[in-house]
Amino acid sequence: MSQTDPLSPSVAEMAEALIACPSVTPAAGPVFDCLEAQLAPQGFDVIRFVAGDAPDGPVENLLAIRRGPEGTRHFAFAGHVDVVPPGEGWTSAPFAPEIRGELLYGRGAVDMKGSIAAMVCATRHIPREAGTISFVITGDEEGPAKFGTVALIEKMREIAVIPDLCLVGEPTSVNRLGDMAKIGRRGSVNIFLDVEGVQGHVAYPHLADNPITRLVAMLAELKAMPLDDGTEWFQPSNLEVTDLTVGNPAHNVIPAKASARISIRFNDRHTAQDLADRVSEIAQRHGGTARALISGEAFLTQPGAFSSLVSAAIEAETGITPELSTSGGTSDARFLKDLSPVIEFGLCNATMHKRDEAVALADLEMLVGIYRRIALAALRM
Amino acid sequence: MSQTDPLSPSVAEMAEALIACPSVTPAAGPVFDCLEAQLAPQGFDVIRFVAGDAPDGPVENLLAIRRGPEGTRHFAFAGHVDVVPPGEGWTSAPFAPEIRGELLYGRGAVDMKGSIAAMVCATRHIPREAGTISFVITGDEEGPAKFGTVALIEKMREIAVIPDLCLVGEPTSVNRLGDMAKIGRRGSVNIFLDVEGVQGHVAYPHLADNPITRLVAMLAELKAMPLDDGTEWFQPSNLEVTDLTVGNPAHNVIPAKASARISIRFNDRHTAQDLADRVSEIAQRHGGTARALISGEAFLTQPGAFSSLVSAAIEAETGITPELSTSGGTSDARFLKDLSPVIEFGLCNATMHKRDEAVALADLEMLVGIYRRIALAALRM
Repeated sequence: MSQTDPLSPSVAEMAEALIACPSVTPAAGPVFDCLEAQLAPQGFDVIRFVAGDAPDGPVENLLAIRRGPEGTRHFAFAGHVDVVPPGEGWTSAPFAPEIRGELLYGRGAVDMKGSIAAMVCATRHIPREAGTISFVITGDEEGPAKFGTVALIEKMREIAVIPDLCLVGEPTSVNRLGDMAKIGRRGSVNIFLDVEGVQGHVAYPHLADNPITRLVAMLAELKAMPLDDGTEWFQPSNLEVTDLTVGNPAHNVIPAKASARISIRFNDRHTAQDLADRVSEIAQRHGGTARALISGEAFLTQPGAFSSLVSAAIEAETGITPELSTSGGTSDARFLKDLSPVIEFGLCNATMHKRDEAVALADLEMLVGIYRRIALAALRM
Repeated sequence: MSQTDPLSPSVAEMAEALIACPSVTPAAGPVFDCLEAQLAPQGFDVIRFVAGDAPDGPVENLLAIRRGPEGTRHFAFAGHVDVVPPGEGWTSAPFAPEIRGELLYGRGAVDMKGSIAAMVCATRHIPREAGTISFVITGDEEGPAKFGTVALIEKMREIAVIPDLCLVGEPTSVNRLGDMAKIGRRGSVNIFLDVEGVQGHVAYPHLADNPITRLVAMLAELKAMPLDDGTEWFQPSNLEVTDLTVGNPAHNVIPAKASARISIRFNDRHTAQDLADRVSEIAQRHGGTARALISGEAFLTQPGAFSSLVSAAIEAETGITPELSTSGGTSDARFLKDLSPVIEFGLCNATMHKRDEAVALADLEMLVGIYRRIALAALRM
């Protein structure tokens, strides 16, 4: 367990301060002021900037760097201070943090202001000589995420401050703190399929060209398209048709156009572009078109020294060996993996995005210890 | 060519009188008054009645009977006085009949007020001793047709006046008056397919059940379902998917429900219920449901004495041997075939349902002659 400095705020107090700043995505202003005030006393240089224009911007971001001696390594903590909308029905106000029993309640408690507070506390116990520590914090992870971590990465490249290893504080634990860490994520691509035909009367099908006939054959072929059977670290890639659109009210009319949308979640056997090309080839063979919207590529931080030190840190504080997983949706780790190896580990995700989001105070304390151990070991790696 | 009686209005004048009564479906009032005024002088007993309630009624209908001597046969002319909406862009007002050159313009000129005028003129030259003649005229053939010819058939059964043969005056000619008569029609059934699934996140497909996957497989199987290769008199039956509906705006969500609508046009190898049962069996196998809306059964008036006399009448007046066809959409003949053998023959359909609908004056004159020959021969059959 980490020991808190009696002259500094506790991790719970720091989490409460962050939660008390309403920051529904995109976050701006006060929540960043609060974080800056927590980092500055530790000697971090804080760079704050706004990126992007409407509709997916502007987005506020924060990059904090505490440089170690020349030749030491650089470890980055990454995360976000924006939160999803609180919704209705909370027991206490979502942006008025409240401790009831062993839990701290408030929007962002686990996703991921509690985690960021733990990162900040953890760095208090890491001597500057150990190496460079940075915080890569965006105000838009829950939204379009176009001008958040992507802009932070650009900024880091611009000033030539590239981490050797990166930990994202997303809430990866499932039932108990420490039971799961993420060493990769599947990629995601949405593809919009359109088939144009020739409208006509159903009694004279030879004078028409039914686009639905071709769309159905196309979708049947796409659904049967072999992807993979999974890999050592990934579940099999999967394609789902998520929408069908014709909108033809006339019972006796063959429509002029039919559309569908598919979503592919894929592992590191594929790239989004390869999949888009394969889908497009099938779509064209059926006389249709395919337009791909790539959300992110698959990535894997191959288990090895980094994952071992993360697992060891978790075991030391919790007694649990984490499952190294690649399951679930996407996260900003999909961008950060271009900078350095990246692993995700954080609080229990049971209440994230729900009403009465809450974190166990004991988990916050343990997470400080885990993050401190990870950072120290990573700087020695 | 038929000879018109100088004391009576010409067929063109009678057609003009009918066209001058606006009667967009469902027709009511004045157009029936006009027809009654044309039939009454010939000794027809006219029964007018209104059938049905909203939304598919009320519908006005007219049954006119001129009884022949005991033991003679009964020949029925059938048709409708309602018309489709005129739409925009007419050269002259659609309900102000106008002769320009050799053509009479107006909504209903060929479909089918011109034809009804020809029937009325034709009966002037058929002596009462030849047999019973009736007019079976509805005000709703172009609309839902639920309380039109169906109600007329009920009325005829009620008063025990059942024709031996029936001619429907739909515009069956294509390029020249006389080139085609209809001896049957395909049946029509629309089937609504629904598949319920379990909504979920596309990243966790094992926790969801995508209804689109099953709908696509169902539709592929339905499209491949063997129907028939056509018969001596019918083209092959055909199934078209006419609509697809999901309505899922969320790219990362597997939807809870997917729906489709199919239309089957089928020949006399099938009944609508048999087809609905086959579709339902396939739908259920894919975990879906099917709800059938039957528009009409296929029917065939087997070529023989009736079709021969129709062909002979057409040949005598036009010099053309008509093709006996079963092509095209449905018509009220699908109901009348339950009463007696039925054949459809009428004007050229090139301008029907279009702007500047028009009939050649020469065709109207020839049609009077054709109808007179058909009725006389049918009463002798």
